[in-house]
Amino acid sequence: MLSETISTIEPQSAEWRDKARRRLDQLTMPHWALGRLMDLAMDLAGMTRSMRPPVARKAVVTMAGDHGVAAEGVSKYPQEVTGQMVRNFVAGGAGINALARCAGAEVVVVDMGVAADLGDLAAAGKIVSRRVAGGTANLAAGPAMSREQALQAVEAGIGVARELGERVDVFGTGDMGIANTTPSTAILACVSGSAIEDVTGRGTGIDDAQLALKIDVVARALAVNRPDPADALDVLSKVGGFEIAGLAGLILGAAARKKPVLVDGFISTAAALIAHLLCPACGDYMIAAHRSVELGHRFMHKHLGKLPLLDLNLRLGEGTGAALAMHLVDAAAAVLTEVATFEEAAVSKAE
Amino acid sequence: MLSETISTIEPQSAEWRDKARRRLDQLTMPHWALGRLMDLAMDLAGMTRSMRPPVARKAVVTMAGDHGVAAEGVSKYPQEVTGQMVRNFVAGGAGINALARCAGAEVVVVDMGVAADLGDLAAAGKIVSRRVAGGTANLAAGPAMSREQALQAVEAGIGVARELGERVDVFGTGDMGIANTTPSTAILACVSGSAIEDVTGRGTGIDDAQLALKIDVVARALAVNRPDPADALDVLSKVGGFEIAGLAGLILGAAARKKPVLVDGFISTAAALIAHLLCPACGDYMIAAHRSVELGHRFMHKHLGKLPLLDLNLRLGEGTGAALAMHLVDAAAAVLTEVATFEEAAVSKAE
Repeated sequence: MLSETISTIEPQSAEWRDKARRRLDQLTMPHWALGRLMDLAMDLAGMTRSMRPPVARKAVVTMAGDHGVAAEGVSKYPQEVTGQMVRNFVAGGAGINALARCAGAEVVVVDMGVAADLGDLAAAGKIVSRRVAGGTANLAAGPAMSREQALQAVEAGIGVARELGERVDVFGTGDMGIANTTPSTAILACVSGSAIEDVTGRGTGIDDAQLALKIDVVARALAVNRPDPADALDVLSKVGGFEIAGLAGLILGAAARKKPVLVDGFISTAAALIAHLLCPACGDYMIAAHRSVELGHRFMHKHLGKLPLLDLNLRLGEGTGAALAMHLVDAAAAVLTEVATFEEAAVSKAE
Repeated sequence: MLSETISTIEPQSAEWRDKARRRLDQLTMPHWALGRLMDLAMDLAGMTRSMRPPVARKAVVTMAGDHGVAAEGVSKYPQEVTGQMVRNFVAGGAGINALARCAGAEVVVVDMGVAADLGDLAAAGKIVSRRVAGGTANLAAGPAMSREQALQAVEAGIGVARELGERVDVFGTGDMGIANTTPSTAILACVSGSAIEDVTGRGTGIDDAQLALKIDVVARALAVNRPDPADALDVLSKVGGFEIAGLAGLILGAAARKKPVLVDGFISTAAALIAHLLCPACGDYMIAAHRSVELGHRFMHKHLGKLPLLDLNLRLGEGTGAALAMHLVDAAAAVLTEVATFEEAAVSKAE
């Protein structure tokens, strides 16, 4: 399923990008005066092969998983918060619920491997259950999961994208998982070759002592596991997480369906690094929603060649930045489809 | 009317800011994890004196005027474009129309002094007519307008805010006026004391020769007119414009009604400088919507102590950046009103 999906991912269409560019060049405004909104409009045309990119139906897919490395004390919050927050998502009381409502997006919560029992929510159809296991193993002591589990989690994400693809035009990624900036940092350090201390941040707000501990944990994870930076499934299985794997699959699945996917914060962008490693062409369907406070996020964007749309000091995850940036996707599509050309509006051009 | 309006402008309420801060501190997320959205939520509470800041009803007020200085050749576009674009706004084909529709905002177009005859649009109720004259005089040769005209234009803007205030919760500012980055640059240089060549930009996209000409025009304007940087009406009358004056009034009128006003690009922020000079407290109701490509914009924000929300390489004006940022105002209000606290959601706090 993974290799089949990868084989169907094509780059953006140069022809449709060009069609869009030609119209945008003629709009009643100084040339390219809406800047990055026009770049985005061209991207949307190139992704969707349309001068009327469909963007109305939106979903933020928030994937949750727990992490054995939480036992090392790398987070300010206890592991039980992951499951509690999933219940908060279902009840509609979390940040992502408020921002998705504003964006006109549905929130699809996926249990990729939460330690708590969420069977009641799955049975009631309130969440999608794709749990691989009740949390990963401690990556500082050995692989976070098996290669088979990594593949299973990625393919689960592809499956979610396929199912939702029937009724969703634009995807957003979101995450929940106590301690998940730690695997994300390990993925970044491994894939980009950056020095660990340069890319390790404070996550939910840890102090200096915890930061030093976290740097040590990531160093141990890479030393113990020696993930191969050219082998995405090796990196994922050794220092990843179930929700990160699921999000990588979601991105691949969206790209295979030629749908834009707004990539949220640090954890989502770690998933994007994995997806990109599996299939570089899927990067053509990623929109970097925002630059978070988390130190390493800018290194991820640099590695992916992406410039984020927003920079609002967010550090929440859940898909909140992706939800916020959905308005810019609507706006970009509207610029392409609703603004008149000089000729249409009988406005004089530049002299 | 101006002094009466100024006398009614009060700073944001520290009490309501604090109430909002106390709730935001308790939301189910790491502390202040939605960053600038939470800063904005606190501002909205402080402006509106409410824990449920009303933000549903929005209007972008796009004020248009012509400029005698266009005769100096400082713009790429002929003066007739100002009136043509007003007709484009009314027909719904401009950038601001598309982005205001996305934001759920109405566009109110005000003729503050366009050279073309727009009487048919005013008679049909398609635009609001507050024309002071058919364009300003050439500020490189003498005052752009009389002090009486400057006062008339500011008070017209206050009047527009008062009338719209009955049915609008959130204002956005917008401008249209060929050559209006030139008076805006002169206002900035005068008020901030910056060197003209440091703050003069390329407007709609002029080349090096035109840029040198524009710098010379601004220098002549300041040398000939010697505006008093401490006297806002003196600055406005000597080197301003009718739409800039109207927007300054609109900002004051919004602040007097304790309503948030999203300040758009370079021209709108020049108006904000004038409003701020007339009444510093009105700055408490300004939200800097975006940082434009126009070189001097960041100097204006620095002078006003504002950090813009968006940075998307926009350089259009019309209120387009203000319209885009309205979504962030909605989102900030939703964070304050819709997200659960740790206690409400039974989520464990940090250890």
